Amino acid sequence: MNLDSLYSSLTVKTDAKLVLLVLDGLGDIATKENGFLTPLEAARTPNLDALTRQGAAQGRMIPIAPGITPGSGPGHLGLFGYDPLEFQVGRGVIEALGLGIELKGGDIAARANFCTLDANGLVTDRRAGRIDTLVCEAQCKLLSDKIKKLGETEVIIKAGKGHRFVVIFRGAGLEGPLTDADPGREGLAIPTSKPTDAKSAKQKKAAKLIADFYKAALPALKNCKPANGFLMRGIAHQPEIPLFEQRYNLKPVCLAVYPMYKGLAQLVGMTKIEGPQTIAEQFERYLLEYNNYDYFFIHYKYTDQYGEDGKFDLKKKAIEDLDAALPILLKKQPTVLAITGDHSTPAPMKGHSWHPQPVMLISDCSGSDKLERFTETGANSGSLGIFEAKYLVRLMQANARMFDKFGA
Amino acid sequence: MNLDSLYSSLTVKTDAKLVLLVLDGLGDIATKENGFLTPLEAARTPNLDALTRQGAAQGRMIPIAPGITPGSGPGHLGLFGYDPLEFQVGRGVIEALGLGIELKGGDIAARANFCTLDANGLVTDRRAGRIDTLVCEAQCKLLSDKIKKLGETEVIIKAGKGHRFVVIFRGAGLEGPLTDADPGREGLAIPTSKPTDAKSAKQKKAAKLIADFYKAALPALKNCKPANGFLMRGIAHQPEIPLFEQRYNLKPVCLAVYPMYKGLAQLVGMTKIEGPQTIAEQFERYLLEYNNYDYFFIHYKYTDQYGEDGKFDLKKKAIEDLDAALPILLKKQPTVLAITGDHSTPAPMKGHSWHPQPVMLISDCSGSDKLERFTETGANSGSLGIFEAKYLVRLMQANARMFDKFGA
Repeated sequence: MNLDSLYSSLTVKTDAKLVLLVLDGLGDIATKENGFLTPLEAARTPNLDALTRQGAAQGRMIPIAPGITPGSGPGHLGLFGYDPLEFQVGRGVIEALGLGIELKGGDIAARANFCTLDANGLVTDRRAGRIDTLVCEAQCKLLSDKIKKLGETEVIIKAGKGHRFVVIFRGAGLEGPLTDADPGREGLAIPTSKPTDAKSAKQKKAAKLIADFYKAALPALKNCKPANGFLMRGIAHQPEIPLFEQRYNLKPVCLAVYPMYKGLAQLVGMTKIEGPQTIAEQFERYLLEYNNYDYFFIHYKYTDQYGEDGKFDLKKKAIEDLDAALPILLKKQPTVLAITGDHSTPAPMKGHSWHPQPVMLISDCSGSDKLERFTETGANSGSLGIFEAKYLVRLMQANARMFDKFGA
Repeated sequence: MNLDSLYSSLTVKTDAKLVLLVLDGLGDIATKENGFLTPLEAARTPNLDALTRQGAAQGRMIPIAPGITPGSGPGHLGLFGYDPLEFQVGRGVIEALGLGIELKGGDIAARANFCTLDANGLVTDRRAGRIDTLVCEAQCKLLSDKIKKLGETEVIIKAGKGHRFVVIFRGAGLEGPLTDADPGREGLAIPTSKPTDAKSAKQKKAAKLIADFYKAALPALKNCKPANGFLMRGIAHQPEIPLFEQRYNLKPVCLAVYPMYKGLAQLVGMTKIEGPQTIAEQFERYLLEYNNYDYFFIHYKYTDQYGEDGKFDLKKKAIEDLDAALPILLKKQPTVLAITGDHSTPAPMKGHSWHPQPVMLISDCSGSDKLERFTETGANSGSLGIFEAKYLVRLMQANARMFDKFGA
């Protein structure tokens, strides 16, 4: 039996409020250099400690599969209960979401780089000497002004940082993924983007569009120096993802600051709220919206950011800052509160990793693991064990008493 | 999405050195008789302790599935990252490997026992009174001299211990598994070995060969007493197993003493090194070969052997002996070191068991579980949790930074 169907068939509506509080990249590793403590273990967290002692279940979550390090896309899809291997989101889509572009179902999105081409059309610099963002914006405007449509398909071009930009093709009957229009190294011509499934008429149509886009855009860039060409990668359509509200019978809302996380929430149909800029403001807004939604996804970026930078102390401080703001959220303690990360970003590794992230679940039926604090090491022996992140939302639903008994 | 394909698609080449140190049958159970300590817990292991405190991740591994006790074949295939349920190796093949026979892809191997037949061809003793190895060797020579080929198929016969021997059929177009030519009890005739898949022409051809072998061999044994017949079991071909080097992008080598483990390593394409007879010599050889390979499988037999004998103190001593030799290995500490067993062989049970074996993983990004020692009980609360053994090699690869990030 399909497990999703089982969960759906057992789901009942309650008036429970569920909060998923994501400290991005929360998980870390204990190393000798840091006194065998993780930032979470080293941080002073009186409010998290009090919450733990109130009665919490802990565990650790495998974001994708053993040893696999996820990007933010698959990391969050897992937290939202979607198998990240089943629902794959292209890099173009993620990039577009990160630039705040509102994608529609069926849109094809591609990451693009300005590059330098020689007289024979060979790529001499894949990043066009890392041109300034202002140059990128000017060139994107030049392309936008010239190419608004290709046949019936709308073309949306948006500049990113440095040499990066994003192209969206919005029209009927399109599908990805296509192969990259990027030779991957210098000295070669830009390869033609092709369907990955030769039988797909929609992919063929999309590949034709990419070719048409090159035909229209390259001449327009002819006199631009050094960025007289561009490469396109991660060309894929926004996948059809079952809507969160229908899947879980929960009306969801996203309280995130950064565009990518709002975009990921929007992919599954969450309402996104604009405005709050700090975690305190996000919590305040939660209080205001308490009656309007059932499921609140609250995203906190800085744990990941300082992990990426290798800044142990700042990651620790980011956790302490969140802890200090926590009493605002707890003014209206939700029926079920889950606190976790979308993956680990160990400061000693300066990047995402595969290490299972710690998770803490608090409800009137979570039980207590008798742990004094919320830490990686404590979570190792928690009652939730080590499980795949995609089950977290199901455990939250269970704690919200949203599932009927299975069988008599 | 197929997980193996995912891992493959993310694999990058690094200059990491990976060592899998297998203490065969390491896992054990704590019983009152032994002061509620396992041999690993009772052993004095200063070097393993130091390694643990240096920063290690621990956990326990399910060799096959909950409650399933593996033989050495599936136990090791799991450690090598091959799902033991998908890649099944016949007992004939394992037996042949144990006798040091180098099998080729497509070879059919069968375990055989000499037995006693009465005048009507009924089995009166399935083990022919447990004849001496010398008698077995003489009779195998008699058969070998008489039967070198059956049609185009080469026949290789090799004596084992007591009444046991192995028969290999080497030729084109053969396939197993076939049903046993063994009634399983006395008083019955030897049943005909049949294809397990009636549609397989290759199995039919193999079954015909077995029948032809009986036709040629039984008359030759007519005057042998008491071993005038033989039974054949576990008749199967050497399966096609994807090569380790291609699967993991690691050049593998096997440092084992006993033929079966060399054979299992060879099945997946590891280079096997002859010579070392003690664990100290194996470690010394590792130092010598350090630059020639990426992945070192080092096998230590005695923990299993004394477990099988029910000798708690000797199993404990075997662990201490290995610990004493460990500093040799650590002269060149590998990028990733995994220490574990292929299964448990609890001394109180005098045999293999299903209890998850403890595993310890040490790398610069393994993190520390803050455990003082490497033990079964400690491993229960390690950050690796309890996982299927087939994922160990993937975790080793992750610790060697051999995987790109999945998704953006």
